[in-house]
Amino acid sequence: MKKTPVKGTNDYMPRETAIRDFLQSRILAVYQNNGFQRIMTPAIEDVENLDKSDGGENLNLIFKIMKRGEKLDRALAEGKHDDLADMGLRYDLTLPLSRYYANNQSKLMKPFKVIQIDKVYRAERPQKGRLREFVQCDIDILGSSAVESEIELILTTAEALNAIGLKDFRVKINDRRILRALLVSLGFAEADLDSVCMSFDKLDKVGADGVAAELTTKEQPEAAIAALKTLLEEGPLTLETIASRMDVSEPVDRLKTIMDTVTRLSDGACEVVFDLSLVRGQGYYTGTVFEIESSRFRGALAGGGRYDDLIGKFSGQEVPAVGFSIGFERIFALLSENEELVDLGRSQAVILYEKGDFEAAWAYSKGLRADHDILLYEKPKKTGKLLNQLKEHGYSSFMIYGQDEGLRALD
Amino acid sequence: MKKTPVKGTNDYMPRETAIRDFLQSRILAVYQNNGFQRIMTPAIEDVENLDKSDGGENLNLIFKIMKRGEKLDRALAEGKHDDLADMGLRYDLTLPLSRYYANNQSKLMKPFKVIQIDKVYRAERPQKGRLREFVQCDIDILGSSAVESEIELILTTAEALNAIGLKDFRVKINDRRILRALLVSLGFAEADLDSVCMSFDKLDKVGADGVAAELTTKEQPEAAIAALKTLLEEGPLTLETIASRMDVSEPVDRLKTIMDTVTRLSDGACEVVFDLSLVRGQGYYTGTVFEIESSRFRGALAGGGRYDDLIGKFSGQEVPAVGFSIGFERIFALLSENEELVDLGRSQAVILYEKGDFEAAWAYSKGLRADHDILLYEKPKKTGKLLNQLKEHGYSSFMIYGQDEGLRALD
Repeated sequence: MKKTPVKGTNDYMPRETAIRDFLQSRILAVYQNNGFQRIMTPAIEDVENLDKSDGGENLNLIFKIMKRGEKLDRALAEGKHDDLADMGLRYDLTLPLSRYYANNQSKLMKPFKVIQIDKVYRAERPQKGRLREFVQCDIDILGSSAVESEIELILTTAEALNAIGLKDFRVKINDRRILRALLVSLGFAEADLDSVCMSFDKLDKVGADGVAAELTTKEQPEAAIAALKTLLEEGPLTLETIASRMDVSEPVDRLKTIMDTVTRLSDGACEVVFDLSLVRGQGYYTGTVFEIESSRFRGALAGGGRYDDLIGKFSGQEVPAVGFSIGFERIFALLSENEELVDLGRSQAVILYEKGDFEAAWAYSKGLRADHDILLYEKPKKTGKLLNQLKEHGYSSFMIYGQDEGLRALD
Repeated sequence: MKKTPVKGTNDYMPRETAIRDFLQSRILAVYQNNGFQRIMTPAIEDVENLDKSDGGENLNLIFKIMKRGEKLDRALAEGKHDDLADMGLRYDLTLPLSRYYANNQSKLMKPFKVIQIDKVYRAERPQKGRLREFVQCDIDILGSSAVESEIELILTTAEALNAIGLKDFRVKINDRRILRALLVSLGFAEADLDSVCMSFDKLDKVGADGVAAELTTKEQPEAAIAALKTLLEEGPLTLETIASRMDVSEPVDRLKTIMDTVTRLSDGACEVVFDLSLVRGQGYYTGTVFEIESSRFRGALAGGGRYDDLIGKFSGQEVPAVGFSIGFERIFALLSENEELVDLGRSQAVILYEKGDFEAAWAYSKGLRADHDILLYEKPKKTGKLLNQLKEHGYSSFMIYGQDEGLRALD
């Protein structure tokens, strides 16, 4: 039998688990303090819900769960190789939340301000160093198209990052409607916009030439590609330039309101910048998109946006929705290297007892448990090695029962 | 797209989620206070690890994850229908823990006192009303065969149940070695004991006649079946009767030590009784087995036992191990109907603001957040319905910004 966890997943040591629990509880507390309420959905979803979900490239990364018994036998016997799975593991928390809201709407507040902190699964290629099982920390506001939703999500997410010691980050923001209007004005066809946006999303990584090259292989009109390249080479586009070129006043005003209000309410501590090249991979975003990047980490710490059409796919009713998701594994990677930022709470102490003294030592330990978590350990002949090991494992004090009068510092 | 969660799984409402979080944090705190440390393992495991794991009837309930891409195509093209899956969802936390210990032994304390609170998955038939995704709360002690391990597990599990308001339960205990010795003495063959034990496990449900009938269909020797039936009809077997019939002094003394010590250390609050018919379903148990039952619930609230051979299957080295698992969903079902036992912590308050006042209300709310979790809501024209709804959803106070001087009770 195989000792290692499956590729792309981790075994977490006690110390790592304590840090993960600490970070999640801090994030959860900030979310709750801002009026969001936690819910939970299953990690397994109907496979059709996942397959039809507009999840962009994530749709190629779904772990599918095989049918069982007769149903599997029948699908195999009939050669229906596309019909062997009936469920799958969720690839994000937004799709299950949309299903949840459609299913339980009548029992929920409207608007519904909701927290999800849970595991998701993607069949990433392990060699890319990406995890196949990872945690996301999401807040969403469902049932409101008000701009205050975006503002609350950004302020709350920034506060959560502050609460775990992260300060040097900035929020990038865009509205897909602006980008789409711009692309149409340059000569791209409405029907190709999803595909063109996905290429444009790579601007950061491949530059204007790279984007142009990819659009050429996608057989987009040469004139449009040339116009786009020229525009990009003029330098970053400001909201003002865009507003002067096209009629996109609603989304432009909305972005300005978000940026100005967040700046004021955070006393300037939370920087929000417009970035036309921000697209986000998911197909389901319809308007605002945002992302948080830190100078201390490559890639985004958090990402999200407005997805006004997704819930309607389940309920048949349009329900505006917007969410912001912290990529927990990046936070964990950053913080587990900066343990001074982590406060694990209660003191951990050890009582060593001689063989035969267990019962007396256990009874004695009861008096210490209000102030310490107490590990009982049978005393080895020589204690030096054990005491070193205990210190490494985060214990702060110890005593030898029947010999010491009370706890002593481990140092 | 389908609105309901997949069969056998649940969407949890905010109130239910808060109760689940509360119960899990209380249980975790008691486990930690008794010197156990939490770890985490992935929910997905290598499919061979699961298939070969001695999990008893759980092996028929594994959700298997299909291979992807070329590997799946190849297995299908070659007609290898037993080889379509490469991973599966774990059906318990004991198997992943055994793999984890074998993989990380050198980095861990020995003995290792460990907590797992996490989700497991079983393809139960939904019509039985059983969940397919559920949480277990486990503590285990690995690397020690000392009887103190069993004692600590029972005391700690009982304390965790007490901490969430459960008092009226008792611990049933047995040792598989005693049952096996008894069955051999009655004429059953050593090689058939696993199968005979599984039938014997049903004594509670089907009675002596039912057990005898099942053993007959399994073609066990008639004389042995008759002897067993006679013995069972004499009434419950005590440890003393058994010790007088067979040479099982080691396990009998061990059980007596466990029962006596737990009684003394809990001041008689934790009742432990010998029950020869207790087997537990898993194939991997080798010695002590235990279970907690409550008069308030059918079936076991917790179960566990000693599995001295399982880690060796991964590491090649024998490592003694024993664990006790609380079936969280039963606790949750019990407690969510007795909410007076649940203390959800911080006060939740609402600030209603007029359209246009968001920014001022948000800034004002900062001053209240040290003492309350604050939900900001745009004020509807008539507030009566909203206030009722807020109360139902657990909010305790509110204010209308710009009108009220401070928070008012919601009642």
